[in-house]
Amino acid sequence: MAEVYTNLKKTVLTLIEEKSFQRLRDILITMPPADIAALFSELSEKSLPLVFRLLPKDLAAETFVEMDSDLQHHLIQGFSDAELQAVVNELYVDDAAALIEEMPANVVKRILRQADPETRRQINEILKYPEDSAGSIMTTEFVSLRAHMTVADAIKRIRQLGVDSETINACYVTDDGRRLIGVVSIRTLILANENDRIEKIMNRYVVSVRTTEDQETVAKMFAKYDLTVLPVVDGEGRLVGIVTVDDAIDVLQEETTEDFEKMAAITPTDRPYLKTSVLEIWKSRIPWLLVLMISATFTGLIISHFEDALKTYVLLTAYIPMLMDTGGNSGSQASVTVIRGLSLNELEFRDLFRIVWKEFQVAILAGATLAAINFVKLMFFDQVTLLVAFVICLTLFLTVCVAKLTGCIFPMLAQKAGFDPVVMASPFITTIVDALSLLIYFRIATMILGI
Amino acid sequence: MAEVYTNLKKTVLTLIEEKSFQRLRDILITMPPADIAALFSELSEKSLPLVFRLLPKDLAAETFVEMDSDLQHHLIQGFSDAELQAVVNELYVDDAAALIEEMPANVVKRILRQADPETRRQINEILKYPEDSAGSIMTTEFVSLRAHMTVADAIKRIRQLGVDSETINACYVTDDGRRLIGVVSIRTLILANENDRIEKIMNRYVVSVRTTEDQETVAKMFAKYDLTVLPVVDGEGRLVGIVTVDDAIDVLQEETTEDFEKMAAITPTDRPYLKTSVLEIWKSRIPWLLVLMISATFTGLIISHFEDALKTYVLLTAYIPMLMDTGGNSGSQASVTVIRGLSLNELEFRDLFRIVWKEFQVAILAGATLAAINFVKLMFFDQVTLLVAFVICLTLFLTVCVAKLTGCIFPMLAQKAGFDPVVMASPFITTIVDALSLLIYFRIATMILGI
Repeated sequence: MAEVYTNLKKTVLTLIEEKSFQRLRDILITMPPADIAALFSELSEKSLPLVFRLLPKDLAAETFVEMDSDLQHHLIQGFSDAELQAVVNELYVDDAAALIEEMPANVVKRILRQADPETRRQINEILKYPEDSAGSIMTTEFVSLRAHMTVADAIKRIRQLGVDSETINACYVTDDGRRLIGVVSIRTLILANENDRIEKIMNRYVVSVRTTEDQETVAKMFAKYDLTVLPVVDGEGRLVGIVTVDDAIDVLQEETTEDFEKMAAITPTDRPYLKTSVLEIWKSRIPWLLVLMISATFTGLIISHFEDALKTYVLLTAYIPMLMDTGGNSGSQASVTVIRGLSLNELEFRDLFRIVWKEFQVAILAGATLAAINFVKLMFFDQVTLLVAFVICLTLFLTVCVAKLTGCIFPMLAQKAGFDPVVMASPFITTIVDALSLLIYFRIATMILGI
Repeated sequence: MAEVYTNLKKTVLTLIEEKSFQRLRDILITMPPADIAALFSELSEKSLPLVFRLLPKDLAAETFVEMDSDLQHHLIQGFSDAELQAVVNELYVDDAAALIEEMPANVVKRILRQADPETRRQINEILKYPEDSAGSIMTTEFVSLRAHMTVADAIKRIRQLGVDSETINACYVTDDGRRLIGVVSIRTLILANENDRIEKIMNRYVVSVRTTEDQETVAKMFAKYDLTVLPVVDGEGRLVGIVTVDDAIDVLQEETTEDFEKMAAITPTDRPYLKTSVLEIWKSRIPWLLVLMISATFTGLIISHFEDALKTYVLLTAYIPMLMDTGGNSGSQASVTVIRGLSLNELEFRDLFRIVWKEFQVAILAGATLAAINFVKLMFFDQVTLLVAFVICLTLFLTVCVAKLTGCIFPMLAQKAGFDPVVMASPFITTIVDALSLLIYFRIATMILGI
């Protein structure tokens, strides 16, 4: 795949060099827009506008959407007003709105000036919804039908409006007040009799969302209900837009990235890594590093408190990393399992006791296994005394139990209290478990070794 | 939402109690299949078959697909042969194949006996492909057209075959040898002239996958190319099936869950948490806990090696957890960022030097910030000597640098070597960084404090 791509890139560069634009165009029109955009990102700033102009109007618009915002900006600056107008009016309005959110103010003005009045009105409609809401990711280009229409009427209307609609897979039926009252799939329309009335064949039970609904909830509804389109209604139940499945997938991927970042103690950013400045990366990472560093002070305090015990048994220090790491890993396993279960709605707060009971049993098993193997190692390889081995293995066992319970309970409580359970992932749990494991360690050591 | 649901559940239970089945049916047919399935999972084993029989045939099949395998099994055992036949033949074949993979052997036999011969042939076709391949998630029910057909012919054919096809949003065009030569969307068909030939309006550049392609790659193609359907071809380019976007979304979510699990040092399992036995959970978690526990032994060895130094400066022990945790967190931030970037194809191996350079700069900034704040804390709160504070802060700074570089380089190398970079996530990086940070700590301490 990568090799095919390298060859393709070479061919394209040669054709540009030779100014064989007709042949270049013949190659480009066989490629999917996402691949053309990837290729364009490797061209020189000079040849990009040249090559972009070779694309037919619709392919140009589709490719433009797939490009990153720096390249879009560069292209727009080279566009004549007529060219800009052609691209903007060819875009679906949700893509046009997304473009405007990325561009600097002067470019935004130019884009809106070139958009035809209806497009401009629709773009502004989408832009007024809060970021990350259903309204902000919907498109206002859709086909709506009326209940009294016949199938033949409906197909006629679709043929009139369909070119501008982002999808016609689902056609929504509205009443006199533009309220959503049903849905009919294009498949049903095609299979129905020409003279059937829409009200007879439409499905009256339509899953829909409010404009203000969070985009993550919207994306999850696509997964739950196996949708390809989802209608968006306002507070009065009036149909104002549709969300398409491709945008839902993008949202799912964004939200997954955010979860990964939060789990690694990073404040999420929207920009791709290579486009983010060092200072921005630093800003997204330093707050949690600081908080966690300062929390680790408590762990240090525990060690200081037992300084005398450690002086007598310096040997005990050597096992601190092993105990802390194993505790941290055991806790992360439980917390990540619970966090993911909550995110997929497989787990709920009412399952708390079942989860705690399950984790407790797993902890007993895992703790016993680790302690047993460690005991063998301590006695035969490290050759510590029986008492020291006992202290370490008992601590290990209890640490695993405490870690698993902490790991499963904290995310559940966070969710219940209205926080994102993801922040209760590894770094946070590790810090808590570190302190607890050391407390257990020294408490047991002072008791059993009599120090 | 949860409240509406509780009320609904109460209503349903009352209606069952009162045997008001007609009213119950009226409520159920207004609900999406996924919601009916969720409600059914809360009914008693006795009332479930009773209520299930109220559903109209198509809704029954759609609801059946959304239920978990235990409930499906329970229902099938209560089905008469005629009922089983009705459900099985109403299912799309990919769903029927997925069902068969979940059921015990005797149930599988019964299902295949009740399926009509064509359905049985198609199910067996899907079952022969390896797990997690494109072939195993595709459906063989699709509409294929021929290039010489007119639009009117095509629509006629769709009307004949469409009822059994999982989607008609994209219709694929094949030649005499069943090879895929083009695609035409239902939208293009509807908007085209009745007498146009398919070869004139079809798109010849079709993104397709081989039956053997990995399902994760398939799912990512939906995201990249904004698809709702993707055709699957065999080694000779013959069209054998289609994958629909709802299945692609399921794959994306499964793969994301696997990544989360691997990042938390868990061997991925397919079953939902509450359905997994304690022993299975233990088995999926213990291998990595063991490996990581044994790796932590090296960290212990480092401490043992510097035992004399620690005896002189027991104080130094108190800062071990803070140094280890900060190192681990810094490393995880870098590794998770890189791993996610690789997974989304935003980063590639050829970006290695850009990434290392960026992480190095971030490390310098973050290390300096943390060291400075820690210095103030050490001098004013902990009141250690200037030299000790210097040792700790210098170690902290170097640890952050080493951790960030380890965190970004290891996943890239793993990917290059053909491993899944996800295994280079937090637990692994933490173990390496722990050892490195202690080596730095003691090396600097012995040099500067002269012990």
